[in-house]
Amino acid sequence: MENVAMSDLTATISMSLDGFITGPNEKVGNGLGDGGERLHDWMFATPQATTDKRFMDEVFRGPGAVIIGRRMFDHGDEPWGDNPGFGKPVFVLTHRPRERDTRKDGSEFTFVTEGIHAALDQARTATGDRNVIVMGGGNVIRQYLEAGLLDELAISLVPVLMGGGQRLFEPSTTSPRALSLAEVIVSPAVTHLRLCLPR
Amino acid sequence: MENVAMSDLTATISMSLDGFITGPNEKVGNGLGDGGERLHDWMFATPQATTDKRFMDEVFRGPGAVIIGRRMFDHGDEPWGDNPGFGKPVFVLTHRPRERDTRKDGSEFTFVTEGIHAALDQARTATGDRNVIVMGGGNVIRQYLEAGLLDELAISLVPVLMGGGQRLFEPSTTSPRALSLAEVIVSPAVTHLRLCLPR
Repeated sequence: MENVAMSDLTATISMSLDGFITGPNEKVGNGLGDGGERLHDWMFATPQATTDKRFMDEVFRGPGAVIIGRRMFDHGDEPWGDNPGFGKPVFVLTHRPRERDTRKDGSEFTFVTEGIHAALDQARTATGDRNVIVMGGGNVIRQYLEAGLLDELAISLVPVLMGGGQRLFEPSTTSPRALSLAEVIVSPAVTHLRLCLPR
Repeated sequence: MENVAMSDLTATISMSLDGFITGPNEKVGNGLGDGGERLHDWMFATPQATTDKRFMDEVFRGPGAVIIGRRMFDHGDEPWGDNPGFGKPVFVLTHRPRERDTRKDGSEFTFVTEGIHAALDQARTATGDRNVIVMGGGNVIRQYLEAGLLDELAISLVPVLMGGGQRLFEPSTTSPRALSLAEVIVSPAVTHLRLCLPR
């Protein structure tokens, strides 16, 4: 049997200094919560900082497939329309089955009801030896983290205080552990922390 | 009347990736909580990283006076002994009056019962035009932050997940706001974020 190197699994998300990945009152139609768009402003800055561009090229664009949660899909579904911007296979973790759905920009949504291992297997099959990226929400990232399946956690730390919202790390589901800093990418408005986890 | 430039007020503390400044079960005799010493390991690394040394020289050693909370004092009192390591005036915010107390290394503890403004006034008087630093705990830092008295927040972000403990930012007492990144100092084991607040 051939010894195949397994592609890496990275999770990435923008987090406020006080640990939130949305503002308060997050719901469909207000997917980032009140004031939560400040967490993503760095992605849309014009001109974009060279370091932010490099981070996005490496972390967002490099992987061959994406995994997201159903809540994130439901938040994005309507605003995304024909152009969700992934342009690659996206596996959506859900309890509610739904038909595969391909958009004009090549974003192909497959709904996986068998849990995080199944979604990862399907993503790895779809992408060959390219990496796979988990893009949220917090609940999905925490599940992959706690299952020991993540190789890297790439947190874009935004220097704002949200004062409420969805946390990335919930104490009740976060095991104490040390990570190692693989790289810190410094930009004017955000600090990208690339953190390694032992596989 | 002479126009005197006011010295800066900086707060500094080490925080885990999940937002904690102690581990769980923090109490006198276990001041950093379970596993909380990992938040301070970077200060005692041998050899010390050049960037960590520079951060400590600028942020810890530069100021002429220190402000801390009574809980932090009570945690430190016994282990510190004759050598608390401050070597300068320390103003302790407390509800319980206590006599001024000078240690062999020049750390001079003054207990202030009149609140954060009084402690800051006394620290500024003691230090002349040198800066003043708030070194914790979280409750004291939050009080200065919310009162609009902080010029800088210097957070040493440690890549560990504590899973519980005392938070630096409590949603109930944290107003939403944007800070600006003045400098990010990257070390192998910690990322120092120097964040400015508008005065």
